[in-house]
Amino acid sequence: MQRVRDGARWMLRLDEGQDLFATLAAFATEESIRAGVVVSGIGMLRRATLGYWNGREYSPMELKVPHELVALHGSIAVVDGAPSIHLHASVSGPEHQTVSGHVMQATIGILGEIYVETFPNRTFGRPMNESVGLRGLDLEPGPQP
Amino acid sequence: MQRVRDGARWMLRLDEGQDLFATLAAFATEESIRAGVVVSGIGMLRRATLGYWNGREYSPMELKVPHELVALHGSIAVVDGAPSIHLHASVSGPEHQTVSGHVMQATIGILGEIYVETFPNRTFGRPMNESVGLRGLDLEPGPQP
Amino acid sequence: MQRVRDGARWMLRLDEGQDLFATLAAFATEESIRAGVVVSGIGMLRRATLGYWNGREYSPMELKVPHELVALHGSIAVVDGAPSIHLHASVSGPEHQTVSGHVMQATIGILGEIYVETFPNRTFGRPMNESVGLRGLDLEPGPQP
Repeated sequence: MQRVRDGARWMLRLDEGQDLFATLAAFATEESIRAGVVVSGIGMLRRATLGYWNGREYSPMELKVPHELVALHGSIAVVDGAPSIHLHASVSGPEHQTVSGHVMQATIGILGEIYVETFPNRTFGRPMNESVGLRGLDLEPGPQP
Repeated sequence: MQRVRDGARWMLRLDEGQDLFATLAAFATEESIRAGVVVSGIGMLRRATLGYWNGREYSPMELKVPHELVALHGSIAVVDGAPSIHLHASVSGPEHQTVSGHVMQATIGILGEIYVETFPNRTFGRPMNESVGLRGLDLEPGPQP
Repeated sequence: MQRVRDGARWMLRLDEGQDLFATLAAFATEESIRAGVVVSGIGMLRRATLGYWNGREYSPMELKVPHELVALHGSIAVVDGAPSIHLHASVSGPEHQTVSGHVMQATIGILGEIYVETFPNRTFGRPMNESVGLRGLDLEPGPQP
């Protein structure tokens, strides 16, 4: 992985075989990012599982072959002192058909070009929304432990 | 809705049931945003109508069930002194299939995480392009009333 | 084409009939952009060819009719002193179905609203990755000729 910074903005290049969540979480930890936006991302995914929230759980779809990563967007928050990363993606397969959803897991194929913006003096939270059964982004959580 | 600002950059969290256009328009009005970009957005849409411009009109498709919001991009301009918001979106349904288009109307489900960049000393316009029959973004309109 | 700048950020409006790559390359050359991100783009594409990397080559799909441009993301680097632009896109057709992929060529229909961020004191490279057979983004190449 390569990373370059200009103020609150980062460009990342992920490499073949890297786990998307683990790599972004390590980046957030290493750079002390506590509030961020995964603004844009392209490349390929060698493997991925995409989810659709059916009101009770994420209904999963596992990609059978590598797909072009055509859109990647999300947020970086902190839960229990560790990075909490929420990502949605669109990917396209051999026939160029597009499937999309909440990213449950993903592994980079060839490379990923990912652009991140941060909010330097903030911490985003992601508390459990009990009525929904999901954690939801909180831009202004109270003081963190 | 929550909003946090860092200079010309904003992160917004929209909430269950909020109308996407009305909420973004109120935000633009309250924050005196006259030139902006809806750079990225994810979450869910409880309801939405997506359009395809067939050369004469937007051919609409109304979503029958909530969909994951996987991409949201667009621009904020001013028309007749009020915010004019142009949005395109991709959404995915229970089978992870993806439909997309010009957003005609949309209501947030659960939440929306939306990232906006603004051009502080500018006003974007959206004058009617009579030859096409659509309003089109003008980055450097003349003096506004 | 219109372009407005605020520091390292640019909003572009491309016009009917403009070639997407030629127009972005001319913009990068004219503005001496050697490291950039095509963060977001919407509008329509009158024509386009999208590719899926099958491990040996880009399997192409040519659009038969104009499509809504719903997502456009990528990077601007320099190869042999000239702009090297890598773009992925999602587009939707008359039935709102979505196809996506690596953009092999594209022509704007009606307009394109494209948002670009640059890294002012950097040069991104895109050297050939011989083991893959593709050029890959290099955020920190050595000194350029």
